[in-house]
Amino acid sequence: MPHLYIRFLAGLIITTTSMLSANSSIISLEMPSIKRIEAIAQSMDGCISLAQGALRLGGINQHTKEYARQILLTDKADYYGDSLGLAPLRQKLALTLSRSCNAPINVQNIFIGHGGLGVLSALALALLKTGDEILLPEPAYPAYTNIAKLAKAKPVFVAAYELRKTEAEPHGAWKFDIELLKSAITSKTKILLLSHPSNPTGVCLSNEELQKLSSLCEDKGIYLIIDEVYDDFIYEGDFTSGTAFALQSPFTIRVGSFSKNYGMSGWRVGFAVAHQDLVAAIAPVQAATIGNATGIAQYAALYALEHPEHIAHYATILKKNRDVMCNFFDSLQAKGIISYERPKAGFYLFFKIHEGNTTELIMDILKNAKVAMTPGNDFGPSAQQFIRLCFARDPEVVTESIVRLKKYFSDKYPHLFTEI
Amino acid sequence: MPHLYIRFLAGLIITTTSMLSANSSIISLEMPSIKRIEAIAQSMDGCISLAQGALRLGGINQHTKEYARQILLTDKADYYGDSLGLAPLRQKLALTLSRSCNAPINVQNIFIGHGGLGVLSALALALLKTGDEILLPEPAYPAYTNIAKLAKAKPVFVAAYELRKTEAEPHGAWKFDIELLKSAITSKTKILLLSHPSNPTGVCLSNEELQKLSSLCEDKGIYLIIDEVYDDFIYEGDFTSGTAFALQSPFTIRVGSFSKNYGMSGWRVGFAVAHQDLVAAIAPVQAATIGNATGIAQYAALYALEHPEHIAHYATILKKNRDVMCNFFDSLQAKGIISYERPKAGFYLFFKIHEGNTTELIMDILKNAKVAMTPGNDFGPSAQQFIRLCFARDPEVVTESIVRLKKYFSDKYPHLFTEI
Repeated sequence: MPHLYIRFLAGLIITTTSMLSANSSIISLEMPSIKRIEAIAQSMDGCISLAQGALRLGGINQHTKEYARQILLTDKADYYGDSLGLAPLRQKLALTLSRSCNAPINVQNIFIGHGGLGVLSALALALLKTGDEILLPEPAYPAYTNIAKLAKAKPVFVAAYELRKTEAEPHGAWKFDIELLKSAITSKTKILLLSHPSNPTGVCLSNEELQKLSSLCEDKGIYLIIDEVYDDFIYEGDFTSGTAFALQSPFTIRVGSFSKNYGMSGWRVGFAVAHQDLVAAIAPVQAATIGNATGIAQYAALYALEHPEHIAHYATILKKNRDVMCNFFDSLQAKGIISYERPKAGFYLFFKIHEGNTTELIMDILKNAKVAMTPGNDFGPSAQQFIRLCFARDPEVVTESIVRLKKYFSDKYPHLFTEI
Repeated sequence: MPHLYIRFLAGLIITTTSMLSANSSIISLEMPSIKRIEAIAQSMDGCISLAQGALRLGGINQHTKEYARQILLTDKADYYGDSLGLAPLRQKLALTLSRSCNAPINVQNIFIGHGGLGVLSALALALLKTGDEILLPEPAYPAYTNIAKLAKAKPVFVAAYELRKTEAEPHGAWKFDIELLKSAITSKTKILLLSHPSNPTGVCLSNEELQKLSSLCEDKGIYLIIDEVYDDFIYEGDFTSGTAFALQSPFTIRVGSFSKNYGMSGWRVGFAVAHQDLVAAIAPVQAATIGNATGIAQYAALYALEHPEHIAHYATILKKNRDVMCNFFDSLQAKGIISYERPKAGFYLFFKIHEGNTTELIMDILKNAKVAMTPGNDFGPSAQQFIRLCFARDPEVVTESIVRLKKYFSDKYPHLFTEI
């Protein structure tokens, strides 16, 4: 690929969508860079993309798809469905989540939407009035900002996660600062939207932290939305889900998805656990905006939910991927090239580079090593020096990407790689 | 089914969603009655529902589903896709629509969304600012109102369709009044949303009327959205599509769907033809709100689009259904029980009753004849005396519903049915 072409592509990524504001009556949202990097990666022969946050382990489990194929021999999924979701899927979710959080969840507490994004959009449209504020603990998942803007609300970034160095953790570890979030609350704050485990940092909050956040939000009349789409990929420590808090407080909502846990990103099935009055209010919202989540996808999700052994299989592979990738990144950290904390959960390594511009580095790695990653500026202003890497790939892809990255960094810093 | 239960259900339909406003921070949208009537109909043994506007002719074509089954043997539909839609589907739509409207349509003029509703929602969120007005020629498709409200805009009903009696048409025919729409335009009007052919009236505008509307809107800087989800079901006269106008004016948008034409309502695939700058602006909107329309559903839509013979098959059956149903309704009209115009297009008979309350009549018919229909008040204030009936059902279902309705009306008005 010619060098000029890469420079042109890099330009595309850095420029914003100014063209679109030609007609001022059309909303002008910025497209996260990840979408464009992914497009470039797919156009390059032999490129490995660790950019997009999708589970890529040989496609969706074939048993799940075989079940969907059987359903396609009937007319079960052909027609409009309930706007809150397929009844058996809501029932099965209620049962599964009741067991996992050891508290009774009713079908009336659950709705199904078009992926995690669709669920968050429906909630944002139902809860946000014009000018309301939505608190985003930063670094934050990029789509949150645009969802807030589409609901005519103001996204308010709070740099609540910090990679802090201490004597005990000389390379740094992620700290979450609830007090900073508390101080950002105004009379207009309506939602606090938390990715948990965090995309991109992998941070999980303790039971006490979640309780504190949930109580704080209820006291202030703020909706705490806990977006737990990575809850099945926990590698270290205990994980406390927000589900139980969604039952305790009418202001806490727990969101989940089949896109990450079951690798069904193309199918678009997500769900929320919330107070039954809120779920009831979502019914006409989704009846107007989506009709219903795609029928055949909901049947596939039902099958997937009945087969948790597939998740366990994915989780085992991802833990190994994480360890292999972290062993390499530990060596980069030891050489002073990056700083990071081994993620305790999720799909991602989120590391800070010590010199240069992340977008330039990402484009240089893309060109020379044919490995795609995501610049930190997608995740908010505090993450400019960070890069996100997704390790939810086939193990041989992870291994090959390490070979390429190792060569790239040893070419760039030959004095640091004398062992070769 | 006990009488008290029916009364209870009728109560459910008449009351609004007042319960939901308990927490004033949650939006309180009214659920169209049709959703509840459909739910009651499905809970009754042996009930025929002519309420929901879905093509029910033995399920989706099996060849289309067989194609989807083949795709499920691969990983093509497993992962996130482009937020504007599957490239081959956009290309095929561009080609098909270019041919049908005899004008060149580019892929950049097309995007795919989650059903017609998803497409309309994305457009509303992208185009409407808080307080903007959206003109709805009335009677209007119920979801339009809630889509406007979710975009923080104000739905403005204009009774532009009138079932008018003249000397030439003593029973009445639908007239469309552009001047009335024009007089409702204010400085806040941002969208004029037209169902074409109209749900529920079946009215199609002439080439001159569409040209006039398109020019009027462009002059005023108003987006004319022409929602043509019934465009393949034209029974009389020529049909002029809005597609060509969407190419001529950056302010005209043509929306289509696979839900009605191909009976794929459960799959949720719709599309729009619009100016390329608007399509480009939709990319980050859909990236945030839906990610992408469900992958497997888009592949099924691609196959369906390549097999227009299936539509022709449906259209032939529906024309016969219309004729059979209209022959019966002509007799009701001759007896003075109802007024209506034989629909020239679409799925529906939309008739005016001469005495009583439509909701009460619908519940009485549901109870005594086990036939479900939709009250006109779903379609706006001017349609209170109307009832909508969907004839997109298997012919034997249509025949049986006529038997039941004939018995119902002959029991109710024995003096008018002396021929039996």
